Amino acid sequence: MSTPLTAKEIQDALGELQGWARDGDALAKTYVFGSFREAFGFMTRVAFEAEALNHHPEWTNVYNRVVVRLSTHDAGGKVTAKDVALAKRMERIGGVK
Amino acid sequence: MSTPLTAKEIQDALGELQGWARDGDALAKTYVFGSFREAFGFMTRVAFEAEALNHHPEWTNVYNRVVVRLSTHDAGGKVTAKDVALAKRMERIGGVK
Repeated sequence: MSTPLTAKEIQDALGELQGWARDGDALAKTYVFGSFREAFGFMTRVAFEAEALNHHPEWTNVYNRVVVRLSTHDAGGKVTAKDVALAKRMERIGGVK
Repeated sequence: MSTPLTAKEIQDALGELQGWARDGDALAKTYVFGSFREAFGFMTRVAFEAEALNHHPEWTNVYNRVVVRLSTHDAGGKVTAKDVALAKRMERIGGVK
């Protein structure tokens, strides 16, 4: 069981991220790339990070767009430190788009 | 501009596919794999096919599940032969799950 972050902790985390926002209980961002190749390349790099963290995104891809939602299953779908860690890795990979 | 398939053509195509159904104007299927690695491995192989066909899916991944929706943008979001072609390649890659 993971511990959900407090509202204050989530706000602090969002302050360190660009373009992320609350979407219900989750953290969400839409990445827009120049092509499908770039979008899927981003996803592939993130996939390895997700495996390494043993924490996986909910994400939807349509052509050059990737919509990401992060929440933690074993915290009842709330945001935990795992989501913030994955979001930060995504930001590094996605070039803060 | 691509030509939408008729209802009869779509029914015939669905008859040659397993587990696919209409979802609004699109063709849709949910693939369930044994792990995130398998699910993302499937997506990676399909990504190359999509690039080769220059026709891309709308798809959502959560852990071991991949929900796919296929329709053709330049046919007003209707189903065309391109969607059927991509669905058939997905079936071969996904092992008709």
